[in-house]
Amino acid sequence: MRTVNWNELDSEQRRQLLTRPAMQGADDISSTVSDIIARIRREGDKALKEYTAAFDRVVDGQLRLEPAALEAACQRVSPLMKDAIGHAYRNIAQFHEAQKPTALSVETQTGVRCELHTHAIGRVGLYVPGGSAPLVSTVLMLAIPARIAGCRKIVLCSPPPVADEIIYAATLCGVSEIYTMGGAQAIAAMAYGTETVSKVDKIFGPGNAWVTEAKRQVSMDFRGAAIDMPAGPSEVLVIADADAHPGFVAADLLSQAEHGPDSQVVLVTPSAELATAVQQAVSAQLAVLPRAAIAEQALSSSLTIVCDDLAQACVISNEYAPEHLIVQTVEPRALLPRLENAGSIFLGAWTPESVGDYASGTNHTLPTYGYARTASSLGLADYQRRYTVQELTAEGLKGLADTVTRMADAEGLGAHKRAVTLRMDVLNQEAQA
Amino acid sequence: MRTVNWNELDSEQRRQLLTRPAMQGADDISSTVSDIIARIRREGDKALKEYTAAFDRVVDGQLRLEPAALEAACQRVSPLMKDAIGHAYRNIAQFHEAQKPTALSVETQTGVRCELHTHAIGRVGLYVPGGSAPLVSTVLMLAIPARIAGCRKIVLCSPPPVADEIIYAATLCGVSEIYTMGGAQAIAAMAYGTETVSKVDKIFGPGNAWVTEAKRQVSMDFRGAAIDMPAGPSEVLVIADADAHPGFVAADLLSQAEHGPDSQVVLVTPSAELATAVQQAVSAQLAVLPRAAIAEQALSSSLTIVCDDLAQACVISNEYAPEHLIVQTVEPRALLPRLENAGSIFLGAWTPESVGDYASGTNHTLPTYGYARTASSLGLADYQRRYTVQELTAEGLKGLADTVTRMADAEGLGAHKRAVTLRMDVLNQEAQA
Repeated sequence: MRTVNWNELDSEQRRQLLTRPAMQGADDISSTVSDIIARIRREGDKALKEYTAAFDRVVDGQLRLEPAALEAACQRVSPLMKDAIGHAYRNIAQFHEAQKPTALSVETQTGVRCELHTHAIGRVGLYVPGGSAPLVSTVLMLAIPARIAGCRKIVLCSPPPVADEIIYAATLCGVSEIYTMGGAQAIAAMAYGTETVSKVDKIFGPGNAWVTEAKRQVSMDFRGAAIDMPAGPSEVLVIADADAHPGFVAADLLSQAEHGPDSQVVLVTPSAELATAVQQAVSAQLAVLPRAAIAEQALSSSLTIVCDDLAQACVISNEYAPEHLIVQTVEPRALLPRLENAGSIFLGAWTPESVGDYASGTNHTLPTYGYARTASSLGLADYQRRYTVQELTAEGLKGLADTVTRMADAEGLGAHKRAVTLRMDVLNQEAQA
Repeated sequence: MRTVNWNELDSEQRRQLLTRPAMQGADDISSTVSDIIARIRREGDKALKEYTAAFDRVVDGQLRLEPAALEAACQRVSPLMKDAIGHAYRNIAQFHEAQKPTALSVETQTGVRCELHTHAIGRVGLYVPGGSAPLVSTVLMLAIPARIAGCRKIVLCSPPPVADEIIYAATLCGVSEIYTMGGAQAIAAMAYGTETVSKVDKIFGPGNAWVTEAKRQVSMDFRGAAIDMPAGPSEVLVIADADAHPGFVAADLLSQAEHGPDSQVVLVTPSAELATAVQQAVSAQLAVLPRAAIAEQALSSSLTIVCDDLAQACVISNEYAPEHLIVQTVEPRALLPRLENAGSIFLGAWTPESVGDYASGTNHTLPTYGYARTASSLGLADYQRRYTVQELTAEGLKGLADTVTRMADAEGLGAHKRAVTLRMDVLNQEAQA
């Protein structure tokens, strides 16, 4: 980890320092991905099976997992793992249940009733990446809010072979359909539908560069599907003071670094001593880490920033807008009012990122790559739409008539005006009759 | 308006009937727009002034309106117009004030505190189109929620000459900076900033094909800016029964049709008699409409759908997912539970769309083009970010340790596990000491 002193940098150097590396590959693969999407739209299941055979080397042609297969998979999951998944489920469900909105109804003036309602998005698609280890937590984080929001249809797809734990978690969350398919072809199938795969309205979940590009492309097409949020490499920024436990800080930095070689890891501290102690702890812990090779790559592009004080540390964090922000200081909550842009904030020595990644109750799907300046942590609201309802009485319309007709005149919209004056004429006739 | 009987169509014909026409032009202009964006990023104010001179034929080189100019403009606005704008302002502010979220705090288990907070997006940019008539209502609908959300900086731009009413409304809403510039160059200037124009984090507002394409392009670049929602032609669907007033229905259809030649207008009714009566009323009102030429073009591609009953009318509306949905039936509220996808719903004979367009209190910025299936009516939430905060006590971490370490094992993430076990070791040592 490179160490810099914030106050030895000019404003341009500071800007450069906090600028994330450009994401690679998107351009090279976008034409491949658009070809895949076009073929899925044209040939449906046939293309889907061919891509699955070619990319995932699975040729049994089974796309949707049948009830019997689901049941068998659930039975193979160990009781200990079922306990863990159940425990995480309860906490995540509790926190997302609490996010249920209450309908809003305001009478802005006599006879003018304005309401804000929410409705679940009808059909959602969840993408769970494959790979060596089953991402059980991703299933819970994506499917629990969909279930609580009341989405009519919840489709999940994951590349073959789909791990038993994923099937168990999906079943627990009430997922309606599970498909064994991955990559850009899976995103295309959910966005447009095929003979077998149900079309969805919105797609959620992480993925590799192909999946990310496919999500981007289908979200650009109004016939396609909306997506959860733009994707980027995972990242953590830790603000720590001289009293922080170097081993805890090192462990938190490493648990981000092991995610992937492109993970971003930043330590900001007013204490040069802590910075050194953390470096040593990182090296020591790295030596006995299973995914040391990946973590080392991530650390090579990572940063330690030594600054004046915690106030300046907050300014630096707001400028960087991290996905995860860990605050290990004597009074972590005291900094909260100064912290602006972050996806999720972890306060104090006993709150490692991994509790939020798995089981505390918060969602681990968060805006990366600086998107925390405008994007939100995934929550119930992302599975719902807000819409307004209004109802006026005749008296209510009378009270608004002059204002509406004057503004319609100013905007040169005669029919907008007529829609009001015509009604007023009828009211006046009724009054005279 | 073409009239069809829903029950004489097969499912494919029904799908076709409700499919919106493809938006024209986007492809042809995307390279022009990306050139403009590239030049603004490279040359800043210089390019901005040259584009303004070329496209808007204004060469005074004045980009930002100075306080003196703003004050003079406000003084030129008539008292009657100020009353109207003030009246609309109060209702819109009241409805958006009521949308302020309350922070959420849940202890999911002993010592595990999970919170959902919101924070205003720091810097927002509002685009108000130019043209023959000043879009005062657009200023109110975009700027009032920005003000209430507490955005640090609110930038507004509109093509020269900026009408006095727009300046008055913007000043009333507390807009921080007003720039006289339009088109793709204005979007680029706000997304990336120039010597004069402040960079913003998110851009809101309607515009022509160039503005829409520029918003799309800057939202694809993480260095650019987020945008409010995808854009499409404005549209209304009216559900009316035999008791509806044909003149009211016709006036509402026409007030949508006059927006532009590409406006979509749909009437769905179980009553063939009403359908005929509305057609006649439309022709009669069209004859005396200032913007008759535009409205006629829109009506030429519009639809009247005769169906079995109101339940089927709701199914058709949900399938179409209109921006505006007007319900003129004996018991309009009774249909609300059946109505799924719409941007804003207007209930009853005394609730024309124009009250929501201007002054009832709801926002007139709504998802078009079928996006109402997943996108929301613009509201306070669009000017804020939601983020989570969590804080565990040592006891809280103990209670989660087994679950988190088991799931980290399952996902093969050793450092995630270590971040917990290391802390448990320290706790155990403390306990023994």
